[in-house]
Amino acid sequence: MSCPFCPPKVNNSAVLLENELSLFIDLKHPILEGSGIIVPRAHRQSTFDLTTEEITSTFSLLTEVKALLDTEYNPQGYNLGWNCGAVAGQTVFHAHLHVIPRYASEPYTNRGIRYWLKQESNRRNI
Amino acid sequence: MSCPFCPPKVNNSAVLLENELSLFIDLKHPILEGSGIIVPRAHRQSTFDLTTEEITSTFSLLTEVKALLDTEYNPQGYNLGWNCGAVAGQTVFHAHLHVIPRYASEPYTNRGIRYWLKQESNRRNI
Repeated sequence: MSCPFCPPKVNNSAVLLENELSLFIDLKHPILEGSGIIVPRAHRQSTFDLTTEEITSTFSLLTEVKALLDTEYNPQGYNLGWNCGAVAGQTVFHAHLHVIPRYASEPYTNRGIRYWLKQESNRRNI
Repeated sequence: MSCPFCPPKVNNSAVLLENELSLFIDLKHPILEGSGIIVPRAHRQSTFDLTTEEITSTFSLLTEVKALLDTEYNPQGYNLGWNCGAVAGQTVFHAHLHVIPRYASEPYTNRGIRYWLKQESNRRNI
């Protein structure tokens, strides 16, 4: 098995912050400045497989991640979320909480995670 | 103050499931079938204001919500997430976790919560 969010593929250079059960990985995305993901150290397929301790650890680390990103990038908001399953956009099957700083200077400012999905253009073909 | 996610505006008819600290509210959205939100009973502005007990309660309720929605709607995946701040698409300032069942029959199937935000068309104007 070769999971990109498990060792040895995840190494110290990509990990910005960590605690006992979770890691924050900087994605260095050219458009989504400052965005990264919080993953459990253990290999869990989706959010629904996280233990209660891993959930608590994720949100404890999130507090530190927000403090770091606020200082470094000064965003005006955040989207936080998981894609669970291929139809929901999950491409790596090791659960990862997307932490996406948002900025007033974005063309898509004020649009949230439901914005596109809820449009008439996404009505199901059934 | 008149928060739509606090009593009396939230009443029993909208609440599908609940536990000690959290409520699941059915949004009855015409496009996003089965989608709803998990809110803390207490008025908290954003995810970052939730207590550890409220986080644990949210994810405990989420397990029940998924079981209910799986039975009722049989989705093939889920998006789970919060919009924090107006620039991130938050319009009601009482924290709410979006629970969005996803289906292979959607035109936007396989697209996740980062899909549109990460496009070149959302590059910041700075």
